[in-house]
Amino acid sequence: MTVEKERTTIVLFSGDLDKAIAAFIIANGAAAYDHEVTIFFTFWGLNTMRKDEVVKTDKGMLEKMFGWMMPRGPRKLGLSKMNMAGMGPKMIKHVMKKHNALTLPQLIELAQEQGVKLVACTMTMDLLGLQKEELIDGMEYAGVAAYLGDATEAKVNLFI
Amino acid sequence: MTVEKERTTIVLFSGDLDKAIAAFIIANGAAAYDHEVTIFFTFWGLNTMRKDEVVKTDKGMLEKMFGWMMPRGPRKLGLSKMNMAGMGPKMIKHVMKKHNALTLPQLIELAQEQGVKLVACTMTMDLLGLQKEELIDGMEYAGVAAYLGDATEAKVNLFI
Amino acid sequence: MTVEKERTTIVLFSGDLDKAIAAFIIANGAAAYDHEVTIFFTFWGLNTMRKDEVVKTDKGMLEKMFGWMMPRGPRKLGLSKMNMAGMGPKMIKHVMKKHNALTLPQLIELAQEQGVKLVACTMTMDLLGLQKEELIDGMEYAGVAAYLGDATEAKVNLFI
Repeated sequence: MTVEKERTTIVLFSGDLDKAIAAFIIANGAAAYDHEVTIFFTFWGLNTMRKDEVVKTDKGMLEKMFGWMMPRGPRKLGLSKMNMAGMGPKMIKHVMKKHNALTLPQLIELAQEQGVKLVACTMTMDLLGLQKEELIDGMEYAGVAAYLGDATEAKVNLFI
Repeated sequence: MTVEKERTTIVLFSGDLDKAIAAFIIANGAAAYDHEVTIFFTFWGLNTMRKDEVVKTDKGMLEKMFGWMMPRGPRKLGLSKMNMAGMGPKMIKHVMKKHNALTLPQLIELAQEQGVKLVACTMTMDLLGLQKEELIDGMEYAGVAAYLGDATEAKVNLFI
Repeated sequence: MTVEKERTTIVLFSGDLDKAIAAFIIANGAAAYDHEVTIFFTFWGLNTMRKDEVVKTDKGMLEKMFGWMMPRGPRKLGLSKMNMAGMGPKMIKHVMKKHNALTLPQLIELAQEQGVKLVACTMTMDLLGLQKEELIDGMEYAGVAAYLGDATEAKVNLFI
């Protein structure tokens, strides 16, 4: 007899540091409670999963502009409130360090260790001109249909 | 024997172009999977459903001010990030066109064709002084109780 | 035989007046339909529950700065859109009064009367240096595990 696992899905639409932290704390919490967890990264949320080095790609002009303007990975994200030209994120990172809270890159690593399914929205990647080589390793690539498949099996479905 | 249809509900609170696109892509995806889908438009989300012409109405001063300041329909919405005084929405629309992605007005039309229930929050309409004639045809009008009735039957409930 | 009550949970992450109003309207609506309702206040959402007087506390410099910069309670929150240096919130409060809509402080009071469980995220309180004495009376204090416990029992789970 198999017991069905609980499921949790999160759409991470936002590219804000504070919202990404909240998403990964909920995802890691749910995984620790043995839920099967999916995070579906779409629009600005994809920036959370970018590598922080520049990756050489062959792109059109507009896609290059998006690439330059959007933050490269979890260390470069701003805050949704009180960003204050980058001082806000520094303050948040400082208090997180002081309280021994996991940083966003550590939360991402923990999610991967716990088997959280990290799915990049292929439609948005096309639109923003993001290529697989620019995202961290171990991502899955799918569209909204795959997200809905997981969400329909889940009780906790959040859009962040 | 009837099989119960899956249900999906979305509260569209935001009046940002990118969030409205995400909401309608998820709604249309769910409808394509034969879910019964409700989008409940509240606060700034109502602007998504405004007609783009000026509609003559009889309003108080404050309601007129809200009417002037808020964007008139899906073609006028800004982005939640990188709006850059309107250049961001232009860029997004340009790449969407290039990739043959449906525009927001087309996504709205598709949702109507697929029978997605589009519900305007009457309480917010009162507050912002929006009148039925100002919204596109085919909307339903209801309050939070109707939304909760649908959401309680659904597994995928998102607030966008 | 006991009938299980429906459950609804809301994560209130945002510290915007309009989003807090939406959260409490949904919460009060669900409570009126006899749902067990939990609002989990995290990050900027905690500001909604701050007392509006200055509370004397013993804090580090950075925590004091967060305390000064963040709004003190529901009367001080700004809008997510059209804040216009405080004119937006004044306009919204004016139209709400005109339409006899409940103010945010009244919505909070109603939620407490209806037995909505108001839970402050202890991890964020640590990070932002918020202390129990600074929040309104009658709150519960817990972490993400408690939230997930409630959310797993609920069908309507929103992140606002």
